[in-house]
Amino acid sequence: MAWNIDLVADIGESFGAWTMGDDNALLDVLTSANIACGFHAGDPQTMDRTVRQCVARGIGVGAHPSFPDLVGFGRRAMDLSADEVRTDVLYQLGALHAFAVAHGTTVSHVAPHGRLGNLVATRADYAAAVVDAVGSFDPNLIVLAQDGELADHARAQGIRVGIVGIVDRAYRADGTLVPRSEPGAVIHDPEVLAGRAVRMVTEEIIESIGGTSLSVRPNTLLLHGDNADAVRNARAIRTALIAADVHIVPLPEVLADRAGKENEPCPA
Amino acid sequence: MAWNIDLVADIGESFGAWTMGDDNALLDVLTSANIACGFHAGDPQTMDRTVRQCVARGIGVGAHPSFPDLVGFGRRAMDLSADEVRTDVLYQLGALHAFAVAHGTTVSHVAPHGRLGNLVATRADYAAAVVDAVGSFDPNLIVLAQDGELADHARAQGIRVGIVGIVDRAYRADGTLVPRSEPGAVIHDPEVLAGRAVRMVTEEIIESIGGTSLSVRPNTLLLHGDNADAVRNARAIRTALIAADVHIVPLPEVLADRAGKENEPCPA
Amino acid sequence: MAWNIDLVADIGESFGAWTMGDDNALLDVLTSANIACGFHAGDPQTMDRTVRQCVARGIGVGAHPSFPDLVGFGRRAMDLSADEVRTDVLYQLGALHAFAVAHGTTVSHVAPHGRLGNLVATRADYAAAVVDAVGSFDPNLIVLAQDGELADHARAQGIRVGIVGIVDRAYRADGTLVPRSEPGAVIHDPEVLAGRAVRMVTEEIIESIGGTSLSVRPNTLLLHGDNADAVRNARAIRTALIAADVHIVPLPEVLADRAGKENEPCPA
Amino acid sequence: MAWNIDLVADIGESFGAWTMGDDNALLDVLTSANIACGFHAGDPQTMDRTVRQCVARGIGVGAHPSFPDLVGFGRRAMDLSADEVRTDVLYQLGALHAFAVAHGTTVSHVAPHGRLGNLVATRADYAAAVVDAVGSFDPNLIVLAQDGELADHARAQGIRVGIVGIVDRAYRADGTLVPRSEPGAVIHDPEVLAGRAVRMVTEEIIESIGGTSLSVRPNTLLLHGDNADAVRNARAIRTALIAADVHIVPLPEVLADRAGKENEPCPA
Repeated sequence: MAWNIDLVADIGESFGAWTMGDDNALLDVLTSANIACGFHAGDPQTMDRTVRQCVARGIGVGAHPSFPDLVGFGRRAMDLSADEVRTDVLYQLGALHAFAVAHGTTVSHVAPHGRLGNLVATRADYAAAVVDAVGSFDPNLIVLAQDGELADHARAQGIRVGIVGIVDRAYRADGTLVPRSEPGAVIHDPEVLAGRAVRMVTEEIIESIGGTSLSVRPNTLLLHGDNADAVRNARAIRTALIAADVHIVPLPEVLADRAGKENEPCPA
Repeated sequence: MAWNIDLVADIGESFGAWTMGDDNALLDVLTSANIACGFHAGDPQTMDRTVRQCVARGIGVGAHPSFPDLVGFGRRAMDLSADEVRTDVLYQLGALHAFAVAHGTTVSHVAPHGRLGNLVATRADYAAAVVDAVGSFDPNLIVLAQDGELADHARAQGIRVGIVGIVDRAYRADGTLVPRSEPGAVIHDPEVLAGRAVRMVTEEIIESIGGTSLSVRPNTLLLHGDNADAVRNARAIRTALIAADVHIVPLPEVLADRAGKENEPCPA
Repeated sequence: MAWNIDLVADIGESFGAWTMGDDNALLDVLTSANIACGFHAGDPQTMDRTVRQCVARGIGVGAHPSFPDLVGFGRRAMDLSADEVRTDVLYQLGALHAFAVAHGTTVSHVAPHGRLGNLVATRADYAAAVVDAVGSFDPNLIVLAQDGELADHARAQGIRVGIVGIVDRAYRADGTLVPRSEPGAVIHDPEVLAGRAVRMVTEEIIESIGGTSLSVRPNTLLLHGDNADAVRNARAIRTALIAADVHIVPLPEVLADRAGKENEPCPA
Repeated sequence: MAWNIDLVADIGESFGAWTMGDDNALLDVLTSANIACGFHAGDPQTMDRTVRQCVARGIGVGAHPSFPDLVGFGRRAMDLSADEVRTDVLYQLGALHAFAVAHGTTVSHVAPHGRLGNLVATRADYAAAVVDAVGSFDPNLIVLAQDGELADHARAQGIRVGIVGIVDRAYRADGTLVPRSEPGAVIHDPEVLAGRAVRMVTEEIIESIGGTSLSVRPNTLLLHGDNADAVRNARAIRTALIAADVHIVPLPEVLADRAGKENEPCPA
């Protein structure tokens, strides 16, 4: 038996003269990319270059829309109206779409960034606004999310959802992440990370920080490329998955395969 | 015999809490709109509302991309590289496209704004960059321009061009506009404006500031809605055109009709 | 017996090509001005012109710092750290100071704008951050506030406070404002406004929306110039105050006079 | 005999989540700093931290104002009016001043950044605008410039000028810099750089790219910290200067000493 998984990371987060992360190193590891769209990072030159690199490697181009907060990198909550969230997402999604089309592809998915990404998991109005934007632009887009309001709203509107597994963050027993401010929140050991990734995909289980086993069904694993260690860990995870007979494939294939499995008759 | 002409204006140039122009009044006059895309004016809420209003009235939705200069309203020259012009135009074009799609239409045309709009008439590298952006996104888009580099480059790449007639600005004998800093540059009298508009369309002639007759073949006339007088003048022009048996029709129809005429056999 | 009061309004809230409010009309009414500093409105050209106009009329130049949110006009909450509030206020205060010095004066007061202005009344960390910024820059500055955390923190640090009376908003019995979303929140009748202003100053009483009498001791009354009605009302208030033997004087004089009165021996 | 020289570099050019250069390493080498003021780099948090670090080390705090072009890092020409240059400089100068005062110091000098820095050497209107801004804010500020319009205008207005020697750029025989696009424009060898720096200061001579000797009288040498090599070279230059009996002192001392020398009677 074999398993399919997509590997995704946030890239294209440079801005003008400033560089962030080692996108080139990550591009060898990924099958999907969340690309900054100008509101927290990612000027037009960076977006163009990033999309071109993704297309050259067959990496799925995803929009990574944010609150409009360049100086805060989209990490600060902003009390936008739901309709402002909707139009901010549409704007950024369209901007990325132009680069995708110019490079011969289309946007494959949408993954809200930073604080907006946190809030859509719990705020129904923001989740509905993102789904509205996505559905009105292209209902074939995939929404990337953890379990929560955004995933629920997308499914309710017939929008495909790619559930994100967070390999390097500790989970609590209720399935939420341990906050970064608490000890043990972030996992750095490449062997531990590789083991967690393989178990997430092949056993659909993640061990919580308290030691209990949680059921997870990720369609994509979120990797990082912020620094040299992060890139090394991303490679270690990919290598371990392949060694465990997991196929690293683009997200639409993961979802298609998953849909197929779910429609299979139960074994007698 | 009848003539066809499109009527266009720059709208959607409000930003956040600030209002500019009387878009609602203009919307009753236009068949096409150049809509600000966020770089000189036009936040996502304004773009969404403006596109919705255009769709409700059957007005063609055009992108009005600018240099990235909100405080200068895109009126100040910026020494961008040609590739920066290309990616800035792509970004803005895509952003507007998202709102067009969300409201059930597509972008019909692209008209560079302000100083960028001036420069593409004379800078071949900028003209080529705009045409590259348009062609790589959607070669069926129409480029709005006066005669000049942008029009030439677009035609050379097989992109349709809508030639803009400027009703309220005086022309010099060489076909260029009298600079705003010179006396007589801007025409305010509604009767004079109406007469010029009708003659431009039905006789394909505009009288220069020196009194000579210039040959023009506009596909669209540029109107303004900056203040109450401008809106009154826009109405006067529309009324006069209709009285002169000119059909006010969307730009694509003007171009289709024009193409048909150009292919007609010469009268014997 | 006579009373002293300062009249203040938010001005300089144009931005680039966009105009807001009728500053020129208001300048004839005010003794103090809260001037936008670039984060919610007010580009350098606007700041320079506004300060020059204030200096020409002897109007006190005050800083009106905001969250960094141009598109939202500083009206949307942003979850900044307290230290970000401190440095954002310092930045804007310094920027205005430069224009004040260039025009031969200094900044007289600081009045947080919009949502930041709301939050400093209840968030002790933001109030402390604003007071820290003010105290580290110039402890002789006056802080404009309603009663609340900002006023308390300023006084505790030895910073003078100018208490703002809001003439055109209804008060609840507990002294807080009726939210704009509720009926009767905003008062438009010029006679009612004039009466309230006079009573606030001469009797130190404001009638709540429920009819009870609240004790108030405003040092300045906040006026508005958003539209023609607002300007008319501002004039009506000024006229009524003068007719009631109230002296319209700059804020520092109001505070100096108030300080004198508070030090007076009690009447036997 | 001994010589005095100031060592300056552009620092504080990070922005929000993005880091630029190794300011910490440079701070051990400098006596003056050109600090970004928010228009091309340098958000309020970065400005506050950078000023604090300079004050802790006794480094002179200088304003590094730019065209308003964050995405272009102030490197792209913008066709501002001279009055826009004046008010943009005032705004940025004031913003930095606030952080200087909050940390117990004052701004010592002003050095226009990037393309603005280039243009003030040749555009008299921009040079006059910068001098106007500086003079109206604090005529005791020092203007940093190469020989050119800015230096001339400052002197004509009685503003002190610190002439900048560019150690790592090749000079042409006419005293202008070899453009970066030409071979040999930038010098990377630490020994060559150290030798040039020492000769600039002790002999007041720089060898042009063609081998001729140019007369220079720098008051400060511009160093760089963009990467590890730049920091190493900055250290090498400092070490070589000290070994050559040059005193590394703050810019005001250099100018005071220079003024003294210029007033000395000629040796018999």
